[in-house]
Amino acid sequence: MNNSDTLDKIRYGKKVQIGDNVKLRGKIDLGDHVKISDNVIIYPNVIIKDNSYISPGCIIGEPTEDYYRNNDHPFKPTIIGNGSIIRSGTIIYEDNTLGDNLQTGHNAIIREGSKIGNKCNIGSFTELQPNVYIGNYVRIHSKVMVGELTRIEDFVWIYPHVKITNDRYPPHRDFKTVTIKKYSQIGAGSLILPGIEIGENAIVGAMTVVKRDVKPERVISGVPGRDICSIRDLKDEQGNMIYPWKDHLKDYRGYPWQETE
Amino acid sequence: MNNSDTLDKIRYGKKVQIGDNVKLRGKIDLGDHVKISDNVIIYPNVIIKDNSYISPGCIIGEPTEDYYRNNDHPFKPTIIGNGSIIRSGTIIYEDNTLGDNLQTGHNAIIREGSKIGNKCNIGSFTELQPNVYIGNYVRIHSKVMVGELTRIEDFVWIYPHVKITNDRYPPHRDFKTVTIKKYSQIGAGSLILPGIEIGENAIVGAMTVVKRDVKPERVISGVPGRDICSIRDLKDEQGNMIYPWKDHLKDYRGYPWQETE
Amino acid sequence: MNNSDTLDKIRYGKKVQIGDNVKLRGKIDLGDHVKISDNVIIYPNVIIKDNSYISPGCIIGEPTEDYYRNNDHPFKPTIIGNGSIIRSGTIIYEDNTLGDNLQTGHNAIIREGSKIGNKCNIGSFTELQPNVYIGNYVRIHSKVMVGELTRIEDFVWIYPHVKITNDRYPPHRDFKTVTIKKYSQIGAGSLILPGIEIGENAIVGAMTVVKRDVKPERVISGVPGRDICSIRDLKDEQGNMIYPWKDHLKDYRGYPWQETE
Repeated sequence: MNNSDTLDKIRYGKKVQIGDNVKLRGKIDLGDHVKISDNVIIYPNVIIKDNSYISPGCIIGEPTEDYYRNNDHPFKPTIIGNGSIIRSGTIIYEDNTLGDNLQTGHNAIIREGSKIGNKCNIGSFTELQPNVYIGNYVRIHSKVMVGELTRIEDFVWIYPHVKITNDRYPPHRDFKTVTIKKYSQIGAGSLILPGIEIGENAIVGAMTVVKRDVKPERVISGVPGRDICSIRDLKDEQGNMIYPWKDHLKDYRGYPWQETE
Repeated sequence: MNNSDTLDKIRYGKKVQIGDNVKLRGKIDLGDHVKISDNVIIYPNVIIKDNSYISPGCIIGEPTEDYYRNNDHPFKPTIIGNGSIIRSGTIIYEDNTLGDNLQTGHNAIIREGSKIGNKCNIGSFTELQPNVYIGNYVRIHSKVMVGELTRIEDFVWIYPHVKITNDRYPPHRDFKTVTIKKYSQIGAGSLILPGIEIGENAIVGAMTVVKRDVKPERVISGVPGRDICSIRDLKDEQGNMIYPWKDHLKDYRGYPWQETE
Repeated sequence: MNNSDTLDKIRYGKKVQIGDNVKLRGKIDLGDHVKISDNVIIYPNVIIKDNSYISPGCIIGEPTEDYYRNNDHPFKPTIIGNGSIIRSGTIIYEDNTLGDNLQTGHNAIIREGSKIGNKCNIGSFTELQPNVYIGNYVRIHSKVMVGELTRIEDFVWIYPHVKITNDRYPPHRDFKTVTIKKYSQIGAGSLILPGIEIGENAIVGAMTVVKRDVKPERVISGVPGRDICSIRDLKDEQGNMIYPWKDHLKDYRGYPWQETE
């Protein structure tokens, strides 16, 4: 509202498509073949790289609270990488650096100050609180809450309704970072307490409450979460090992070690 | 975006009302007295039957991921039954057959490949993953996750924040169908593991983790869920039986066995 | 749809700003310096007081189900207090009285018949069911479900994914009010059963299932929730008392007892 639509400040790449009722509110850089669907709002200082698709009703570069108090709110840069698909209703705040081939579900929220690597998925209604670090090939399903300062390494999967917390003594904001190491799987509905580290290739069962650090390659489950077994003890119905999943995933799911198919 | 608005392909029933900033993107069939509110987007191959109401900001016929790669994406048919009320922000993917008198809450998501019977409610922020089967008179409250392949029979109630899972060995996609039989009640916040069957008229207490099949007319509760009693042991404050609820529900809630009132 | 845009019935305060594609559907009162962003819909009988900001895509005065059956649906009054920030996609039903300096997250839903005091926050995707009472300085985080009839007193904090229930014998609608007394903290993912009272300054740990009343100043945790200790037994790493938090919160968080800073 307090930024007029200043079309001269916009850089359009080749073959950019812009839908109806789109608001481009300032200095914006749109790469080649970018498509901006109907009813999208883009605030100043946003860069959208080549071949990305912004679906209807998205808001990109959403301002932090200062905007409502300060008529000269300085918008920090927001970058969306190449080939991204941002589904309808997604809200990406200012001051984010998002890698290539990001996909979001519908109505995802990415708050300010985060960095996301390449080839990640952020599910519908999932919310990343501020200052989150996410590696590459991370898949976060629907309705997940990722607390402020969380670190999620490459190839992690987080299933629906997971809650990653951060405040040990609420509401004192005594934040402790949760770290989830490579290849780990966090089961649906689970909750991770502040400061916890989940080791590489660990599996957290559905609806587990994680109160202690989890060692690499361990399976934990329950409320509170208890150590159950090694991931190497889990077998499919034919008795075949299936974990570490990187070594046993048969379907092509887009992983770099499978790209020789 | 890659479908121009081709108004000649639209069939309008009698007294159709169309709001402002509505996008009708191809071959669409609108029954008598259909109302399409402002800011709605309807993709090709959608049929909306008589007397249905599509609220502001809904997207009907939302394409699957192929759309973003394929300029000639073939839209599969999507049907919304008579007298439906689709509340604001609801997203219904292509390739769905939805019965009469469907109601959705706000921002519900119905992914592709599903079949829903008559007189169902799908709550706000609830998400049906692909290829779900839902019978008649099913009521699913807010923020529920219904996993791919789930089968829900007639007259089932599912309360807020329930999670119905499907993958036994994530991320291998070794999907096993969860089946919820007639008249069952799934308490708020519960989680059902892959492949589970919930028997007719069973009650799953709030925040239960269902790891084993539930027999008909049993009450289960806890983490993990344990068998507590028969539903016939539950009484109200006056000592009256209240289950099976079909036999004891006093208020008219629109059920067919009550329509003689 | 069945209310034409009757601009003559609108009262505009001084320096009101109205975005594009805004629908003002009847008798509406906009205070001084009110800003209505793009794509907002406001139904009849809404009062928005001075200096409030309605973000893109919000719906204010959303009608109850009667609207879809009744061409003369009478809209009950909806009031939004001074200096409120209503973030994008929020839906506020008719028949609500919301105090000053309300903030909502994105896509919050406030159903009909509720009263909210001053300086409250209602988080993203959080849903207040009908007929809720909320005091002053209450902070409800994201994806919370607040059941019908819930009472939440001043200075309460509710963290993400909390579920406050109400129906003892579903689906009989035998509603019992949950009451949460002043200064209490309800941990992420917790569920409160119908009719429970949480005492003043109590702390409910994360993912707790509250089946019994909680006495003032007690900490409870677990499934089912068990009494752990007094809040006065909780200390920070330096051994300092940190609860009751009102007496120990160091950061200025906008509380009235800190306004002398």
